[in-house]
Amino acid sequence: MLDFPVENLSAEDVERLRGIFEPLTRSVRELIDATIRTEADADAVAQAKAEIDAATARLRERQLEGSFGVRFGSDGDQMPWGNVVIGMRNPVAPPLVFVPSEIGGVRADFHLGAAYEGPPGHVHGGVAALILDHALGGAASSMDQPRLTGTITMRYRRMTPLGDLHVDAAVVRTEGVKTFAVGHLSDSEGVTVEAEGVFIRPRWARE
Amino acid sequence: MLDFPVENLSAEDVERLRGIFEPLTRSVRELIDATIRTEADADAVAQAKAEIDAATARLRERQLEGSFGVRFGSDGDQMPWGNVVIGMRNPVAPPLVFVPSEIGGVRADFHLGAAYEGPPGHVHGGVAALILDHALGGAASSMDQPRLTGTITMRYRRMTPLGDLHVDAAVVRTEGVKTFAVGHLSDSEGVTVEAEGVFIRPRWARE
Repeated sequence: MLDFPVENLSAEDVERLRGIFEPLTRSVRELIDATIRTEADADAVAQAKAEIDAATARLRERQLEGSFGVRFGSDGDQMPWGNVVIGMRNPVAPPLVFVPSEIGGVRADFHLGAAYEGPPGHVHGGVAALILDHALGGAASSMDQPRLTGTITMRYRRMTPLGDLHVDAAVVRTEGVKTFAVGHLSDSEGVTVEAEGVFIRPRWARE
Repeated sequence: MLDFPVENLSAEDVERLRGIFEPLTRSVRELIDATIRTEADADAVAQAKAEIDAATARLRERQLEGSFGVRFGSDGDQMPWGNVVIGMRNPVAPPLVFVPSEIGGVRADFHLGAAYEGPPGHVHGGVAALILDHALGGAASSMDQPRLTGTITMRYRRMTPLGDLHVDAAVVRTEGVKTFAVGHLSDSEGVTVEAEGVFIRPRWARE
């Protein structure tokens, strides 16, 4: 069983929190990129490290005991803010913003930089899998019917360059607790990775 | 074709660079965790953001034009430092440290915290896929024979809790340019996700 706490937060409170934390998360995403790409000398790196440690100590003065999880506001706002793919408060998330696609699935345009590298200049094959897993799972799920990945297969047609990318996913069919979904990752030249998966309605969500 | 530049760096130079950049990357990993979990007020967050932006500006004063890639030192030291799974300079990487396993494959013990969350309190299924893709690819490859993922299938047996985890992978067989590998992710209670994949020797590495 998973815990999805409902917080005593109005839609207005949720927006206020977004206004506080979204700029912070964006700044940390920039810092991640700079950390990988910097050629600064030892002194500059040591000074940057001291500034970072000061920021971390400040943020840790009051913090959650565990991970962020998924919270709901009292008006029904969903806050999957810690999620590694879409989380507004997770600097590891690019983040992806999924929108409904014409064919009844989901789609997202996004950019992957140096932080997502595997082969030189290219997206790590496992990052492609991460994004496709989330997209297919999102297409297979709805707010009141979460579904978790049962099996998923990735087929790599060619390497995906770092840069501007696109993901698409849609449901093929549903049989009982199983939903079959497909999707693909693409760059401006076309499809780079295809995925197909079976998503399961967990026992605790079958009421 | 991929570019693996050889830098004019001795083994000693490589260690010196590690000494400069590894502490920085570790600090940024701490900051990522703090950014997700902080409950600090707006003023403290704004102050932390200013410190972070100052550090980023300092690091960006001299930086690579693109991503880090994979470099080699003149003594043959491999520096996959930008890699999203194992990269010493990539704050998104946990990072995993793979060692040879008894059965001729690779294994790694590692910890995943709040930054890798999908379902509340649990590892995102796609992060499991990211790690398994890297492990199977590592088992299938050698320094002089890189192999890229052709297809890979994940089978989710149960949800993987955030915390201390373990990954194992090994080659099953090789047929021409194709190498078949299997592996699994596990927590202290046993296996949570299984993977099997086909890894291909790229055309440019078939000489």
